[in-house]
Amino acid sequence: MKYFQPLALLLAITVASTTVADNPVAIAVHGGAGTIERGLLSEERELAIREALEKAVRAGHEILANGGSSLDAVTAAVEILEDAPEFNAGRGAVLTSEGTVELDASIMVGGSLDAGAVASVKGVRNPIQAARLVMTDSPHVMLVGEGAETFARNRELDFADDDWFITDFRREQLEAIRARRDTQMTELSEDWYSTVGAVALDREGNLAAATSTGGMSNKRWGRVGDSPIIGAGTYADNRSCAVSATGHGEYFIRHVVAYDICARVAYTGQTLAEASDTVVNKVLRQVGGDGGVIAVDPRGRISMPFNTAGMYRAAIHADGRLEVGIYNDETE
Amino acid sequence: MKYFQPLALLLAITVASTTVADNPVAIAVHGGAGTIERGLLSEERELAIREALEKAVRAGHEILANGGSSLDAVTAAVEILEDAPEFNAGRGAVLTSEGTVELDASIMVGGSLDAGAVASVKGVRNPIQAARLVMTDSPHVMLVGEGAETFARNRELDFADDDWFITDFRREQLEAIRARRDTQMTELSEDWYSTVGAVALDREGNLAAATSTGGMSNKRWGRVGDSPIIGAGTYADNRSCAVSATGHGEYFIRHVVAYDICARVAYTGQTLAEASDTVVNKVLRQVGGDGGVIAVDPRGRISMPFNTAGMYRAAIHADGRLEVGIYNDETE
Repeated sequence: MKYFQPLALLLAITVASTTVADNPVAIAVHGGAGTIERGLLSEERELAIREALEKAVRAGHEILANGGSSLDAVTAAVEILEDAPEFNAGRGAVLTSEGTVELDASIMVGGSLDAGAVASVKGVRNPIQAARLVMTDSPHVMLVGEGAETFARNRELDFADDDWFITDFRREQLEAIRARRDTQMTELSEDWYSTVGAVALDREGNLAAATSTGGMSNKRWGRVGDSPIIGAGTYADNRSCAVSATGHGEYFIRHVVAYDICARVAYTGQTLAEASDTVVNKVLRQVGGDGGVIAVDPRGRISMPFNTAGMYRAAIHADGRLEVGIYNDETE
Repeated sequence: MKYFQPLALLLAITVASTTVADNPVAIAVHGGAGTIERGLLSEERELAIREALEKAVRAGHEILANGGSSLDAVTAAVEILEDAPEFNAGRGAVLTSEGTVELDASIMVGGSLDAGAVASVKGVRNPIQAARLVMTDSPHVMLVGEGAETFARNRELDFADDDWFITDFRREQLEAIRARRDTQMTELSEDWYSTVGAVALDREGNLAAATSTGGMSNKRWGRVGDSPIIGAGTYADNRSCAVSATGHGEYFIRHVVAYDICARVAYTGQTLAEASDTVVNKVLRQVGGDGGVIAVDPRGRISMPFNTAGMYRAAIHADGRLEVGIYNDETE
């Protein structure tokens, strides 16, 4: 049978590479959820938002299509959304009550369950890179404040000043909020929940999730929401799903939203669509926890439920189909 | 049948009050888990630890026995452990690489799922009180760093200076660690995991959980572990259980330990004993996640599994029995 061996080897290689090539890749991104109703956005701003979402999801998908990792794909997508001034993350983040920018981010991979997060950092141009370095280059999961900034500086990450981060739109927004209610945080703003995030499945079957935010407009006291909390704003496990959340962070922390969706998939036999819909449209809606999630499962099936008037979102599904949406009547 | 009504009313009142009086109360506390082997502790230190654990669990139990809330019970128990110099929380907390004390704490109640947490705060004498005020007196769940300190100061919480917090034992410990490995964190210390915590069930059927810590010896970069993370170090839900964790925080965050135990109870039909044992002795042990948890369910059944040589722990069970333990051969 010796002469069969090269053929068998060739067949094995062909089968293996076919299997890998046939494995689906999928990616979804979000730019926040909230009271985004038709007519609220200018045509120009709406177009800029749709273009940024599409750019981010295409950049991540290109990495996946070329055999890159879901970790690289979600990092690239979130970096683009951080740099885009339209969203509340990185450049264009909302301002604290002191007029500063304090940023949170987290990232997780679903094979090893490795994770990294930073909270309340100032000046780091791309907080998602800092979160990723916490995961890959430190023994820790979460670093906060000046300590996290020192870590990022030691790792030679790019820093930027207020001119980069703070847009005229956010300055005017903070002034409007201050004029309305001096020391309260706004609950009535398109921006309240406009965190950004990405989830992806790569050819190797690895899931990843990433989330980045500037938090709440006019926030104070070092408030941290769900975005940098592994389990609340971000979770990924190859056995169940990858989730990035956006919404009223306090509710998302108390209900451990990202992990709860994965736990329901793992423990109850619900599909990702059922589990994410239950958590967003039943559990959270019942308690007034506004927001939504993007999620993907090991077969590349994407769910993007939200219980608000809109969620900035885009996906490239396993069949290659591009979807970009803002309002709830665009839901497929 | 009119003449039966007063009797029926009387009966109803009797049954209701009997039911409440018959409802079990239960409480457990921990002072950390780790490589605590027989002979490592001096007789004097071991006695001090056992006495502090008993004092804390008795104080919490007295509140419960008098009809007080589980929230008050876990707060009182954790305050005693914070003030005791034997544990790594409040007074006696480990020192950061800069020789300072940075404290984390969180608290949660199982009826409303309200929760509060502070991370990386300096000078707050009882961080658990700060976490509780975040829950009750702010719209937020988590505050970090100087912002959290400002919040605590505004709420007139007690502050203390280094003379209160820093014990000779911790100063010597930090020097020993520095001498051994200049910039590394120790993994070889009794103190690594000696977080404190409490869980309780009150007569009303309400569960609560609380956790407080100084984190890792020689920690840097604003590292935050699982203790202030709702879902990782602390969780409470009247429908499943209340959990306070202690261990190698990074693993507890990635596995969302406290919430995962509650999710297994809620979704899989496992008992609390089965769920907490699975998470601590299978899931965590498999990945090298050293530590343990204390947990109580709505019927007052207490579980205290740990995968280390010891866990400082005490409980007063639903039948009134007191249990105090350090080593694993004391497990019932």
